[in-house]
Amino acid sequence: MNTFGQRLRLTTFGESHGPAIGGILDGMPSCVRIDFRRIEEFMDRRAPGKKLTSRRREKDKVDFLSGISPEGVTLGTPIGFAIYNTDARSSDYSAFESAFRPNHADYTYQRRYGIRDWRGGGRASARETANWVAAGALASHLTESAGISVTAWISGIGASSMENPFSYCDMLTPDAIYKSAVRCPVADFEAALKQEVEDAIGHGDSVGGRVSCRLHGVPAGLGEPVFGKLHARLAEAMMSINAAKGFEYGLGFGAAASRGKETADRFMTVEKNGVREVECATNFSGGIQGGISNGMDICFSVAFKPTPTFSGTVETIDSEGNSIELKMSGRHDPCVAIRAVPVVEAMSHLVLADMLLLSGSDCRNHNWNL
Amino acid sequence: MNTFGQRLRLTTFGESHGPAIGGILDGMPSCVRIDFRRIEEFMDRRAPGKKLTSRRREKDKVDFLSGISPEGVTLGTPIGFAIYNTDARSSDYSAFESAFRPNHADYTYQRRYGIRDWRGGGRASARETANWVAAGALASHLTESAGISVTAWISGIGASSMENPFSYCDMLTPDAIYKSAVRCPVADFEAALKQEVEDAIGHGDSVGGRVSCRLHGVPAGLGEPVFGKLHARLAEAMMSINAAKGFEYGLGFGAAASRGKETADRFMTVEKNGVREVECATNFSGGIQGGISNGMDICFSVAFKPTPTFSGTVETIDSEGNSIELKMSGRHDPCVAIRAVPVVEAMSHLVLADMLLLSGSDCRNHNWNL
Amino acid sequence: MNTFGQRLRLTTFGESHGPAIGGILDGMPSCVRIDFRRIEEFMDRRAPGKKLTSRRREKDKVDFLSGISPEGVTLGTPIGFAIYNTDARSSDYSAFESAFRPNHADYTYQRRYGIRDWRGGGRASARETANWVAAGALASHLTESAGISVTAWISGIGASSMENPFSYCDMLTPDAIYKSAVRCPVADFEAALKQEVEDAIGHGDSVGGRVSCRLHGVPAGLGEPVFGKLHARLAEAMMSINAAKGFEYGLGFGAAASRGKETADRFMTVEKNGVREVECATNFSGGIQGGISNGMDICFSVAFKPTPTFSGTVETIDSEGNSIELKMSGRHDPCVAIRAVPVVEAMSHLVLADMLLLSGSDCRNHNWNL
Amino acid sequence: MNTFGQRLRLTTFGESHGPAIGGILDGMPSCVRIDFRRIEEFMDRRAPGKKLTSRRREKDKVDFLSGISPEGVTLGTPIGFAIYNTDARSSDYSAFESAFRPNHADYTYQRRYGIRDWRGGGRASARETANWVAAGALASHLTESAGISVTAWISGIGASSMENPFSYCDMLTPDAIYKSAVRCPVADFEAALKQEVEDAIGHGDSVGGRVSCRLHGVPAGLGEPVFGKLHARLAEAMMSINAAKGFEYGLGFGAAASRGKETADRFMTVEKNGVREVECATNFSGGIQGGISNGMDICFSVAFKPTPTFSGTVETIDSEGNSIELKMSGRHDPCVAIRAVPVVEAMSHLVLADMLLLSGSDCRNHNWNL
Repeated sequence: MNTFGQRLRLTTFGESHGPAIGGILDGMPSCVRIDFRRIEEFMDRRAPGKKLTSRRREKDKVDFLSGISPEGVTLGTPIGFAIYNTDARSSDYSAFESAFRPNHADYTYQRRYGIRDWRGGGRASARETANWVAAGALASHLTESAGISVTAWISGIGASSMENPFSYCDMLTPDAIYKSAVRCPVADFEAALKQEVEDAIGHGDSVGGRVSCRLHGVPAGLGEPVFGKLHARLAEAMMSINAAKGFEYGLGFGAAASRGKETADRFMTVEKNGVREVECATNFSGGIQGGISNGMDICFSVAFKPTPTFSGTVETIDSEGNSIELKMSGRHDPCVAIRAVPVVEAMSHLVLADMLLLSGSDCRNHNWNL
Repeated sequence: MNTFGQRLRLTTFGESHGPAIGGILDGMPSCVRIDFRRIEEFMDRRAPGKKLTSRRREKDKVDFLSGISPEGVTLGTPIGFAIYNTDARSSDYSAFESAFRPNHADYTYQRRYGIRDWRGGGRASARETANWVAAGALASHLTESAGISVTAWISGIGASSMENPFSYCDMLTPDAIYKSAVRCPVADFEAALKQEVEDAIGHGDSVGGRVSCRLHGVPAGLGEPVFGKLHARLAEAMMSINAAKGFEYGLGFGAAASRGKETADRFMTVEKNGVREVECATNFSGGIQGGISNGMDICFSVAFKPTPTFSGTVETIDSEGNSIELKMSGRHDPCVAIRAVPVVEAMSHLVLADMLLLSGSDCRNHNWNL
Repeated sequence: MNTFGQRLRLTTFGESHGPAIGGILDGMPSCVRIDFRRIEEFMDRRAPGKKLTSRRREKDKVDFLSGISPEGVTLGTPIGFAIYNTDARSSDYSAFESAFRPNHADYTYQRRYGIRDWRGGGRASARETANWVAAGALASHLTESAGISVTAWISGIGASSMENPFSYCDMLTPDAIYKSAVRCPVADFEAALKQEVEDAIGHGDSVGGRVSCRLHGVPAGLGEPVFGKLHARLAEAMMSINAAKGFEYGLGFGAAASRGKETADRFMTVEKNGVREVECATNFSGGIQGGISNGMDICFSVAFKPTPTFSGTVETIDSEGNSIELKMSGRHDPCVAIRAVPVVEAMSHLVLADMLLLSGSDCRNHNWNL
Repeated sequence: MNTFGQRLRLTTFGESHGPAIGGILDGMPSCVRIDFRRIEEFMDRRAPGKKLTSRRREKDKVDFLSGISPEGVTLGTPIGFAIYNTDARSSDYSAFESAFRPNHADYTYQRRYGIRDWRGGGRASARETANWVAAGALASHLTESAGISVTAWISGIGASSMENPFSYCDMLTPDAIYKSAVRCPVADFEAALKQEVEDAIGHGDSVGGRVSCRLHGVPAGLGEPVFGKLHARLAEAMMSINAAKGFEYGLGFGAAASRGKETADRFMTVEKNGVREVECATNFSGGIQGGISNGMDICFSVAFKPTPTFSGTVETIDSEGNSIELKMSGRHDPCVAIRAVPVVEAMSHLVLADMLLLSGSDCRNHNWNL
């Protein structure tokens, strides 16, 4: 249950304050030249220690232990990697050894396992997502060579929210997004989103957020009905991210209020570079029909709850069942959704790369040419 | 990719208008006495041929082929079953042989497989969910003996929507829900929901909806971090249902607009039948923390799009890429969300039964007693 | 645990005397035209009711329920099938309801499940292998189109045994093998093997045997290290067959008595149809090196125990632990190895087809051309 | 394909001369106190650098990176570990960069992946089995607490071979076995086995061998029909070990020459510590019937080929297809079977621990009491 994927399988390990976290990416095809700078860039985008995010300063250096030749080319064998924990200040957490913090996984881990590593959240810490970003960076070599681009950004924090996030796609480049402290370079929204975070900080509080993501260039024919629908795999992936509370694609929850006629995505043919291709006139389907991509942009959003760590005291119980007043502390993010942006991208790369490998040469063979 | 579950594994087959649909449920423990009337009841709840739903009149009789002794007790071996297709009028669909219907899976199956069974939607038809309901009815023997109840209902259609669906739980019994044509026996809403469906029918149109579901009595300690989080498994299951566009639990998409302090679920102890137990004062977490159940109600909702079939004509293309005017026909549901209610319940039983088996005796061993 | 394979997955169900046995073959590529006569031929080769084998006369008709178009072409969706049990005389077995027959699975199933279907062996019956042969016949469409042929035969019964089975390959065609009552058309051995079976029958006894198998035309590069070695997959497959007691390939158990220098398979190049290809001068490796095929014939053998059913009485205990004298009866095979020949072939097709799909286009891409 | 097991899953990585090898053991129950000296002992038993084995002197220190609390107790989370490569002399192998050594995996890896790490055998090196021994040592905590003991030894090298290996079980303690340089402390055989190895060394040659293994104390009811038969899982595990060529259990290949009546394992009851228990009068079945353990000793043997590395030159080809004379070198084992003894034990622990977890509480619930 610590493995994700079918053909491209990521298995991970690691507690937040243990010796290391890490993983094994199995199924990566051979003869792929790895761009180590890209991996570093992916890791930097997730790294804490920035304005508006947690002050823990982990270098997040990925040590590759196997699967890549000395020349930097994949061998087709499993890629083992480790990220050593160097800035873990467990003492910050000692007050929590016997307390069950509200909305944290302290109590549930205790019930599931009868033991838990209380230092920094142990296995339940979002530090685990550093593994996913490392693996997603590897997977991105496959998606990129298939012509796919993945772009996530913040589309809502607190009371500020884009009504139609995907209408801003053209303004959203990775560079611009990651330069923005709130991961949203759209002028109309950036200031308001920042204000929401600062207001939460000002109150010693945390705030929720929404991440939207667009997968562009996904070839038609990706996805496996019935229990491997592309959007079900994306949902599973996104809901695995710490603090995720909801997933929607295409019409999303707006679907409930829609009528069939007004949301029918009419098929048509268009000419591109001299080739006639199939497109939809609209994209209410969000790029997926019957669990399989149709070649249009895949558009989805993920809701994240406020970090359950904030300043001040909370009433709760300790592991003996005694009522206690707990003083919260520890480094944390006021808006965990901001940190989740590169994680949403990494998981998208993993899902798509897996689906590309699963489809094998099928989607190429069955290209439907006019 | 036609298999769902880890320890309790459902593998299914079947095209809508082929000889039969069916499946194999593997991992069902031995020595469980099967209540065949319950299975029939589950199937009846999903069956079409009712007011406000599709007019196809399939008997949906489940033939059990193995895994159950002549006395009706499970053998521990795989339970094979088949549901024969008896009311399949393929001629209704012949117009679609070479047409790509908007928002259907015609085009994407063609791209994925290079061939498709166009009769009644083939493998993409929601008829597949009859398999899930049959398997869910079997799985419900395990969840029920663990003290779990599963209740789903319609919490929104078109413009009518419950603001806080889970505040109505006490009024919602299975009997009352399934007597209601719109699967919502709450007086304030039932009439409005009916009106939404009838209005859609009146316009020859279809309409979307939202199903809410409450899992009551789930023991604390169910769920597997990191890639088997209970809510991620539920999301995957629900997003596998035909027409699903969104999943949320606990705060859901409302999380984005929330602050951390106001949504902290304070732990406390309560006395029940002379035993002190742990509870939360509130349930913003929706019964799951860190991917593991905490003993509170698990509360989630699923959004469904309008059925992509309606009356009238649509512009689209045929398999040669020619623009065509397609006259829609075939029996269909004006609001597929209504039909999805028992499917949401069935998938919940499958997920929970699987998780119970995965946890083995663990969650019992680690019971945290005061 | 009733599923075999990774990309081509066979999941089966069925008790010997239940309503039906059957299975689901998932992962079969689309657009493959099925030769139904071949499937019938495979089933006939396994069918009982022949001289020297069990007298049960099952028609073994395979009903395909999905996954194949009306025109006989695969859809890419799971192929469900059922074989109905029509000649099950359960009364033959009623004496065994409370007895534990020696070397049967009566006692172990009782311990594993606390219940068992005693009629005809239930799930432990070799009738299950009819499912495998049906699936193997489907898989053979893939292996054949890859240029692979699979040939199994009897290489030993009782005291009669071929010392070097693979030196007879040129004399062994499927036609000749299946015309021979002992599945061995080699004149020097056929009479002796028959004599062994008839001698066992004459004593109301059963006798063991050995099946050898040659996989010809397997392309170099099939197999997945480390835990998916081609020979480990073959071993797992063959040891799943009822009554199998041993598996060996290449040097096999003779390896223990060998020296390294004398068994080194020297690489060389040969010219075939104007193309230089790599071959080994000898084949002590049995066609597999490091778990991956090297293009030479894959040669393996499987040992089968005598059927544990014979005439006469045996001392044993009943389910209360009382010593009893049990009169054996029921239709059975005097030499189950003979019946296993087409099953060994079917499982070979399944393993190879799965490996072909797993390798995707890899082994084609990496063709090493001189 | 680098993962072994169902509930207790070992995923490994590593090339022989890369930075490290290692793995992740997922599914280990929580609250197990780890005996680190046992792990060291297991590793020492496999370690090279001994008389009669390879001279490579790797310390084989296992670094545990997660899943174990600072107090040495399992957390229920995945156990990540790494073994750093410290004595890798790649220069020894540079002659093989472009040569295909006979009976090695050079050619097949090249065909499978189009690239290979030629340094020390890369991923195909038996160094990988150090990962298995580390994981097997962890798994042995589970088998031991279930009352199971695992004992493997050399039962044959070259022309010297025990006719009935399992008749010597009482003389075979782990201590005695691992003190013997040929892993066989039986006086009658030890000298002869040594002589075989020394004779091979004297000729600059290598020699094959056979390992026998006895699993004692396995409770009745372990194993999963149909495709998870206990002996099929053992076969798969053992055939995954480098250089394995054959697997047999119970009657093994002798089964082919046996009759049914003479090999029927009569059931009877015996009194042990005041409790009547079921036993078999003989053990031709080798402790497994119908794929499920029957409580008797599980007895199996594995054949290993001679190491394909020896002194002198061999004729072969290089990667351009040119005939070459290759001078063999590199540190190697004259009889790899000796090194395989602790690996056979480790894989046995992994299989049995997995099966114990799979059976959950079932085999306890269904205990058949007289």
